[in-house]
Amino acid sequence: MGEMKNMDVPVLKVSSKSNPNLVAGALTGTIREAGRAELQAIGAGAINQAIKAVAITRNILSDMDLICIPSFVDLTIDDQIRTSIKLVVEPRAK
Amino acid sequence: MGEMKNMDVPVLKVSSKSNPNLVAGALTGTIREAGRAELQAIGAGAINQAIKAVAITRNILSDMDLICIPSFVDLTIDDQIRTSIKLVVEPRAK
Repeated sequence: MGEMKNMDVPVLKVSSKSNPNLVAGALTGTIREAGRAELQAIGAGAINQAIKAVAITRNILSDMDLICIPSFVDLTIDDQIRTSIKLVVEPRAK
Repeated sequence: MGEMKNMDVPVLKVSSKSNPNLVAGALTGTIREAGRAELQAIGAGAINQAIKAVAITRNILSDMDLICIPSFVDLTIDDQIRTSIKLVVEPRAK
């Protein structure tokens, strides 16, 4: 885990059709392995599922005191600029 | 600010029609006064606006390294149980 902290943060893409429990499972595995993870979501439905996944993951990894940090990121998809929300999820103590 | 930390966390209710910039303004004022705040949102549209407001507030209070902590809260509204998302927003270092 220590070595992976210097690598890029793994990115999990979330859509409005994503199952929050399955996203939480992936998030849990990623955080256990890499120490942190990043969710990427475009649109209200996707952001909703992403936040639910973080709440579920907080309960699974309850010893970690996970926090999330939202920010805006402009992505170019099919030559169009879309504003996505990036959620970094990691333990409170860095 | 020190005295207010022992009081209840101020709760700001967010709806799908809330303007994220205005919520961010209220959030900024509340965090400056009380040290932290809580957003309450029901449904994808409301959660979307709430997360945008947190991202905007992080930029406004960039010296604070704000983090957010999502959790599920069951509310009784008109005799019906609705699951809301609670977002605690506070500086990373408690």
